[in-house]
Amino acid sequence: MEKNIEISLLFDFYGQLLKEQQQQTVTLYYNDDLSLSEIADQLNITRQGVRDSIKRAENLLFSYEEKLGLMKRFQKTEMGLYKIESLAEELADGYDKNTVQQIIDTAKSLHE
Amino acid sequence: MEKNIEISLLFDFYGQLLKEQQQQTVTLYYNDDLSLSEIADQLNITRQGVRDSIKRAENLLFSYEEKLGLMKRFQKTEMGLYKIESLAEELADGYDKNTVQQIIDTAKSLHE
Repeated sequence: MEKNIEISLLFDFYGQLLKEQQQQTVTLYYNDDLSLSEIADQLNITRQGVRDSIKRAENLLFSYEEKLGLMKRFQKTEMGLYKIESLAEELADGYDKNTVQQIIDTAKSLHE
Repeated sequence: MEKNIEISLLFDFYGQLLKEQQQQTVTLYYNDDLSLSEIADQLNITRQGVRDSIKRAENLLFSYEEKLGLMKRFQKTEMGLYKIESLAEELADGYDKNTVQQIIDTAKSLHE
């Protein structure tokens, strides 16, 4: 089972919607980097049970994002905020009307 | 049953996680402003069935927000973006270092 950075990100967003055991297995596997066997020992379930729990959790996390798309929306906003910050840093070094307009346009494009 | 603006907002965020019939009843009730009886006729279920479906949907929507808090987070970001836009509009009228700094600080406070 390949560890996937996207799962960690999705888990930060939607993890609270998972069942408690799924939250435990995903956290131990992705955040604490334990092996399936180590998790099995710790939670007193079979290695296959751990694998199934993580697999189901991953599928749920992907389905939440497919339905809601909130992580994608957040990431777009984050990018825009970094852009605004960097444009404003330029302005701190010297005034430029065009840069001000870019900040306005970026902020506008990000709110509804 | 009181119609609640918060439900409409929550539905925009999390509606896709509800069952299809719940999505239908909530949409007809909150967006299309039909009465329980009209919805019952249209979906060919009882008036009580409509009421129960909407109630369950409302509880789920509240629980999603309670667990994930994404609507609140989005709203905070929206407010910040409006603030940035308004600060940048001020800059378009005249340069002020303090305003530039406020834009930088606001953008920083909104991304992770």
